[in-house]
Amino acid sequence: MRYAATLRYLGGDFCGFQVQPGKRTVQGEINRAANEVFEVPCSVTGCSRTDSGVHANGFVVLIEPHGESASVIPPEKLPLAMAAHLPPDLIVWRAVEAPDGFHPRYDVREKEYVYRIWNAPVRNPFWEGRAWHVPRCVDDAAIARIRAAAAHFVGRHDFRSLMADGSDVEDTVRTLFSCTCEKEGDLLLVRVCGDGFLYHMVRILTGTLLRVAEGKTAPEDIPAILEARDRNAAGMTAPACGLYLEEIRYPFPLF
Amino acid sequence: MRYAATLRYLGGDFCGFQVQPGKRTVQGEINRAANEVFEVPCSVTGCSRTDSGVHANGFVVLIEPHGESASVIPPEKLPLAMAAHLPPDLIVWRAVEAPDGFHPRYDVREKEYVYRIWNAPVRNPFWEGRAWHVPRCVDDAAIARIRAAAAHFVGRHDFRSLMADGSDVEDTVRTLFSCTCEKEGDLLLVRVCGDGFLYHMVRILTGTLLRVAEGKTAPEDIPAILEARDRNAAGMTAPACGLYLEEIRYPFPLF
Repeated sequence: MRYAATLRYLGGDFCGFQVQPGKRTVQGEINRAANEVFEVPCSVTGCSRTDSGVHANGFVVLIEPHGESASVIPPEKLPLAMAAHLPPDLIVWRAVEAPDGFHPRYDVREKEYVYRIWNAPVRNPFWEGRAWHVPRCVDDAAIARIRAAAAHFVGRHDFRSLMADGSDVEDTVRTLFSCTCEKEGDLLLVRVCGDGFLYHMVRILTGTLLRVAEGKTAPEDIPAILEARDRNAAGMTAPACGLYLEEIRYPFPLF
Repeated sequence: MRYAATLRYLGGDFCGFQVQPGKRTVQGEINRAANEVFEVPCSVTGCSRTDSGVHANGFVVLIEPHGESASVIPPEKLPLAMAAHLPPDLIVWRAVEAPDGFHPRYDVREKEYVYRIWNAPVRNPFWEGRAWHVPRCVDDAAIARIRAAAAHFVGRHDFRSLMADGSDVEDTVRTLFSCTCEKEGDLLLVRVCGDGFLYHMVRILTGTLLRVAEGKTAPEDIPAILEARDRNAAGMTAPACGLYLEEIRYPFPLF
């Protein structure tokens, strides 16, 4: 049996998802735990690469035990079976039998990210490493500007200006289905939903929206920033600690 | 000037509030930071002793710099000034000039604690060390039983049965103003408000309510548990990691 599973993890102590020799990665931990649980070598395929420090509430993986002697584990028992072999900052949250031919990355239709900003003059110990601390007050007028700017990102665009330098991706056209900003007490949430994202795109998008909040960029400047197709036209890269991969949606119901 | 300040801290890496030689404590860290900020020896008095591992959102302290040469710091600047000298898990959240004769412990009229329970079969990395993981489902019927039991704790009672053994407190009569239970998704919150609490009282109260949830104790048994004046009559001591000192109220507005 092949398993489709969602992972939750606190990214601070991981060097991202993808296995790298000598580094602590999500894929590495999941693979090790799966090998122990199924008692055969397993392979683990992810829906995405998340950067070092990025968190996830709904990262999707395909877990494939290889070999006739693999332990038989009903999918609904997999989260608890894996929990016994995983560290405190990583968990398999749900698991099902993977549909025939399922591929967690190629089949993605929609990805949702949330970026959390702790917006108060002093930092909050409970959000340390879990949100970006922006001390300067983002007031209602600034949120209105953020929302006006965010609306310009929605749709099918060439997002090259929001891609980190050094990425070798050729096709930089993506579609954003939504881009919103909510305030929950002193917490500011930027939520983006799209068919795919370039390297650092959500973090650069957030950094650009913050520049709009500060009045350094006008909402009406966003189309020109996109048209520039130049990383230097956009704002700073917001730190990884505020970013959460929230949900991955497929053209078929997975869970 | 004497300062009244509220602290926020993540309790996991502190050996409680009170200074102990060779241990990392909240009082010790605040005192060290205050000495650096005011450039004179300071004294720090707390509203309560919190146990090792207990968190706080609104712990109140009195900070008194001693000596003519103390730096002059307006109260509204104190949180930021202290932040530069405090570790990531502790912050001064607000500060004001303390009213004449103010004592953070003797003047308390009301204390509010929240106990958080992560109630899902698998643990949640985001609540690790911040909530008690109770895997067995507390359903709506169980919550109704918890609420019925909680109502019996409200009022003026001898709470000796809910006091940890080894405490030398003589007067074990306290008044609970409220004791409620709410469900927020997979999180269960027990909120208690009272004029004071005995050693481990909120944690034993929570452990007892969980026994009610499991059906091992009936809500109607609570009065007999209190009348027993015997620690063995009550439930287990819930772990420190789920407990938050939420707010301290005084007979006068402090902030």
